[in-house]
Amino acid sequence: MDKLDEKVVNTMRVLSVEMIQKAKSGHPGLPLGAAPMMYALWSKCLNVNPNTHLDWPNRDRFVLSAGHGSALLYSTLHLAGYDVTIDDLKQFRQLGSRTPGHPEYGITDGVEATAGPLGQGMAMAVGMAMAEAHLASVYNRPGYPIMDHYTYTLVGDGDLMEGISQEAISYAGHLKLGKLIVLYDSNDISLDGPLSNENKDNVKERFEASHWHYQRVENGNNIDDIIAAIQMAKTTDEPSIIEIKTTIGFGSPLAGTNKVHGAPIGEEGIQSLKQKLNYSEEEFTVDSEVYGRFREQVMHRGQALEDEWNRMMDSYEKEYPSLAQQFKNSYSDRYAKSIEVPHYKPEDGAIATRTSGHQILQKIAQSMPCVWGGSADLMASNNTNIEDEDTFLSSHYAGRNIEFGVREFGMAAMMNGIALHGGTRIYGSTFFVFADYLRAAIRMAALQQLPVTYILTHDSIAVGEDGPTHEPIEQLASLRAMPNLNVLRPADANEAAAAYQIAFSSRKTPTILVLSRQKLPTLNGPTTLNNVEKGAYVISPSHKDKPEGILIATGSEVSLAIEAQKSLREKGYDFSVVSMPSMELFEQQSIAYQDSVLPSDVDNRISIEMGSSFGWDRYANKHVAIDTFGASGKGNEVTEKFGFTVENIVNKALD
Amino acid sequence: MDKLDEKVVNTMRVLSVEMIQKAKSGHPGLPLGAAPMMYALWSKCLNVNPNTHLDWPNRDRFVLSAGHGSALLYSTLHLAGYDVTIDDLKQFRQLGSRTPGHPEYGITDGVEATAGPLGQGMAMAVGMAMAEAHLASVYNRPGYPIMDHYTYTLVGDGDLMEGISQEAISYAGHLKLGKLIVLYDSNDISLDGPLSNENKDNVKERFEASHWHYQRVENGNNIDDIIAAIQMAKTTDEPSIIEIKTTIGFGSPLAGTNKVHGAPIGEEGIQSLKQKLNYSEEEFTVDSEVYGRFREQVMHRGQALEDEWNRMMDSYEKEYPSLAQQFKNSYSDRYAKSIEVPHYKPEDGAIATRTSGHQILQKIAQSMPCVWGGSADLMASNNTNIEDEDTFLSSHYAGRNIEFGVREFGMAAMMNGIALHGGTRIYGSTFFVFADYLRAAIRMAALQQLPVTYILTHDSIAVGEDGPTHEPIEQLASLRAMPNLNVLRPADANEAAAAYQIAFSSRKTPTILVLSRQKLPTLNGPTTLNNVEKGAYVISPSHKDKPEGILIATGSEVSLAIEAQKSLREKGYDFSVVSMPSMELFEQQSIAYQDSVLPSDVDNRISIEMGSSFGWDRYANKHVAIDTFGASGKGNEVTEKFGFTVENIVNKALD
Repeated sequence: MDKLDEKVVNTMRVLSVEMIQKAKSGHPGLPLGAAPMMYALWSKCLNVNPNTHLDWPNRDRFVLSAGHGSALLYSTLHLAGYDVTIDDLKQFRQLGSRTPGHPEYGITDGVEATAGPLGQGMAMAVGMAMAEAHLASVYNRPGYPIMDHYTYTLVGDGDLMEGISQEAISYAGHLKLGKLIVLYDSNDISLDGPLSNENKDNVKERFEASHWHYQRVENGNNIDDIIAAIQMAKTTDEPSIIEIKTTIGFGSPLAGTNKVHGAPIGEEGIQSLKQKLNYSEEEFTVDSEVYGRFREQVMHRGQALEDEWNRMMDSYEKEYPSLAQQFKNSYSDRYAKSIEVPHYKPEDGAIATRTSGHQILQKIAQSMPCVWGGSADLMASNNTNIEDEDTFLSSHYAGRNIEFGVREFGMAAMMNGIALHGGTRIYGSTFFVFADYLRAAIRMAALQQLPVTYILTHDSIAVGEDGPTHEPIEQLASLRAMPNLNVLRPADANEAAAAYQIAFSSRKTPTILVLSRQKLPTLNGPTTLNNVEKGAYVISPSHKDKPEGILIATGSEVSLAIEAQKSLREKGYDFSVVSMPSMELFEQQSIAYQDSVLPSDVDNRISIEMGSSFGWDRYANKHVAIDTFGASGKGNEVTEKFGFTVENIVNKALD
Repeated sequence: MDKLDEKVVNTMRVLSVEMIQKAKSGHPGLPLGAAPMMYALWSKCLNVNPNTHLDWPNRDRFVLSAGHGSALLYSTLHLAGYDVTIDDLKQFRQLGSRTPGHPEYGITDGVEATAGPLGQGMAMAVGMAMAEAHLASVYNRPGYPIMDHYTYTLVGDGDLMEGISQEAISYAGHLKLGKLIVLYDSNDISLDGPLSNENKDNVKERFEASHWHYQRVENGNNIDDIIAAIQMAKTTDEPSIIEIKTTIGFGSPLAGTNKVHGAPIGEEGIQSLKQKLNYSEEEFTVDSEVYGRFREQVMHRGQALEDEWNRMMDSYEKEYPSLAQQFKNSYSDRYAKSIEVPHYKPEDGAIATRTSGHQILQKIAQSMPCVWGGSADLMASNNTNIEDEDTFLSSHYAGRNIEFGVREFGMAAMMNGIALHGGTRIYGSTFFVFADYLRAAIRMAALQQLPVTYILTHDSIAVGEDGPTHEPIEQLASLRAMPNLNVLRPADANEAAAAYQIAFSSRKTPTILVLSRQKLPTLNGPTTLNNVEKGAYVISPSHKDKPEGILIATGSEVSLAIEAQKSLREKGYDFSVVSMPSMELFEQQSIAYQDSVLPSDVDNRISIEMGSSFGWDRYANKHVAIDTFGASGKGNEVTEKFGFTVENIVNKALD
């Protein structure tokens, strides 16, 4: 480390606090403490190419899990040569800027993941490392390490206190993700004060218990020590954590206290900091030598490596043309355009959508080799294994069946990392009621516009005996309320096939497939992709053009609604039945289409769904719904108790 | 261990599989493997009194975190002498029975907690141990250990893979909860197959890293070894885990495989099991000696200890009458009936509800000495500390301010354990957007009817700069959809005071207080408890009896709605403004009251809330809402961008 390196680090520090000061908002604590490790990583270790943004598939990945330190990331990206300008830095945290309060994927050049909700960045990094290991195993050939990169993440104390970090640590250790390297900004301070008031874990022992390689750098300002530790970490077969002792808010008047975590340090604080660092540049001014030093290292190394990789790919394409084609297709939406699914006939009989879903998944997995996924230890119940494929294990990274373990939240966040990495399409599964465990990561998928697929089975009180802890009630409503998320609850095997097609061809929206445990009849109706992708359609019309009422149902309740329609007919009432597999998709249709399905002059509308009535008032003025928790009992007795009978629906319709 | 002990254990095993067989549903794997540890714990160690059910405050607590093993718990409760009959066992998993699929608090005598969603039982046990430590520190006096009991929980591999277990482990170790003892049913099998496919953590090292005492019992059938380990665990100052190696489905044909985890073993399997165990009783028949052995140990020990405790309390009442009174009051709703809160006047000016909430909390904490709580490392932002009180630490268990660390989900589950324990009233806090992290435990609070309070601040896009990861959108809707949960979003300081009163006097419903970060004017209107507890009321009436339209708003949008009302008046339109702090409470009012607030013949109704429109169609046909994610920018600019302006509301109203 020479004087210029030191100046680069101090430039990162000062730019960060200047951004925060100008915005009058932000978190200076991490940038001041962690600038040296960021510089060590980016200048000497991270192989990325700012010239080609995030386009190079084999670039190293970096996730700032401690997303509140965004100012440091943005100043780093600026100095490294990404399309992040001084003007962008000046617009930190301003409406419409490219430098929002927390890093947002898709907004800022060079940002690999949205972060902020703690712990999730670390789990996303694990997902990226999983994707790298899998792709390497599938595509690499002797002399052709076309997928061969490291994944880095910077975490803080908050990340490591979150339970999801343990799911990520435990699973990464299990998988021996040796190319995952975690930099731990260890400063002994949390938001509310000394960390020792909240946590006394022995970090070394904790990580070693999960078979990680642990190192400690005593002086977080010593760049050479940090670089040496990263280089050592690259040589191990285990995932690595490097605990780097830092001082929060280093150099500022409140250094070493929680007061510097989340508030600007003030003009005086900045002057004091500059003095202490012996740093004399004007506000938002960067010495040209600083640019030279940083960019010469990052850009030149990255460009050379990417050029080399491109040359390797040219040869690879000649030697392994079909693999190369598959690799390219997997990074485009080529496969998504040619999804094949089975077709079902009413005479095929009753079949649970988790079972038809299994069959559909097989076809998709055949036609889309980039598809892989798994379950949070419920594969046998979710029916989400890909047949004749192996389990994804450290001994066999090519395996397409991922046993995530009982780690639902971690699974969902790792799925986000896998999707961010690119090159595959990922699904995950568990019971629908445990959508609550996944939820904070589902939100991050929706926010990052990642087309991941959640296959959530056991979708209602019809699970019966397991009782209210396992019976979803409010889950449908709670997920429908989330922006940019498609919730699909298919009524039968053909609707399920359509739902899978929608999910696996989605480009920017995650999809939840809500599937039944119990058997459902294969319906005699227009259960086509064309109808399902409209979100709702008339599955069984009224005899006359204008129905006297409309029964609107989803999933397992559609066949019940059709039975109720018959009973109403026998009594002389002419109702239509609408299947509504997805409210979100229906909302996207034209008013004319919506009115053709739910004519505005038909007032008597009954929603029928084994879940909360919340949100159904948009379409119906009467509800056969459940606004309490469920009950333990035989499935058919439980559904009857809650009014899911022809008789009750008919009574409601005629009320 | 003698022959009779062995027979008791086998009775527990056989009863469990007979229950499952009769129900044709359930999980035999755990009961067959873990019956010996249950017997060891209950017969020799657990101090409970089945004669007085769950009434003795100083009883030991036992939580079956691996709730799918419910059959074993019910057979244990039966043998121990609780009000769980052979007929109840025969009704296992049947609708309306006292023996539901997973243990449910309040349904079955002797069940201390609802369990099933993995990991949460363990965290609830930590909460119980926290409550014990706190109450002991507050109430015990020399010679009067009136609160002095152990908390036990039985966990499986699934519990320990869940991230929440780490939050619980880490925090329990930090707090040195020496009277917490975990029995770990370690059988190397998870639902999808060998545990080694999913997890390779070194359990000893993992727990020791968090300062736990670890023991291992090699033979899970050796009751004496298990008892010895429990006795050793009771002597340590650290929380204890005893890893007990067992065989899943012990004695059954599929023993040692995942196939025996969750399906009945069949009549033949039961015959084979009985033969193997040399067990010859008829179905659902218990040898009277078995009753004698089990009950003589549990009941006699428990009754004697409770008698002794009652005598001690008599003396304690004489020596420490005011403490004794406080103790009794804390177990009743005495304090809840005399809550005092401050009153605010418009001239007090603008104040954020997180700030008024802090002032209100001080008054409540003074009038209710049983109140304690804290934050997931955001106390300084949530403003939820109790002034002049200490932090709850191992050196000071009397502290009323709990620093939960960055462990949101764990916090919520520990709160459930604290509430289940009794003797205090608990609150917890974090940012509102992180309700997603808490969610699965909020559901367990609602299901168990626990009156805990969540104080969730930073309630809208008005947080501004932190951006979409920190801006709640769908959280209000998603929580309103949950049964038995009151969501209150107060419009100003007086509504906040009322909301706190409702929360802290609730008996069977958890409450979410949704509070602003930004300042809100103190309103000049009938913002009284009487109105707030009705869920919605006319805060600013129209001039004429019948308004031309209604603006319905919550929280920070109420003052905006009142401004819009003025603007509409200036244009010649006569609207009323309804403040709706709680949809749930409003739904509980009479139709007549509801119609007085929202007259059915007034069609033009506009909802105004900085959140998803989902669910608002019940009350309004136009919405000023947000159905996308938020944005990073200055708070006022962000709210303006999303249409929260007088002008936009007026336009919508007149559209």
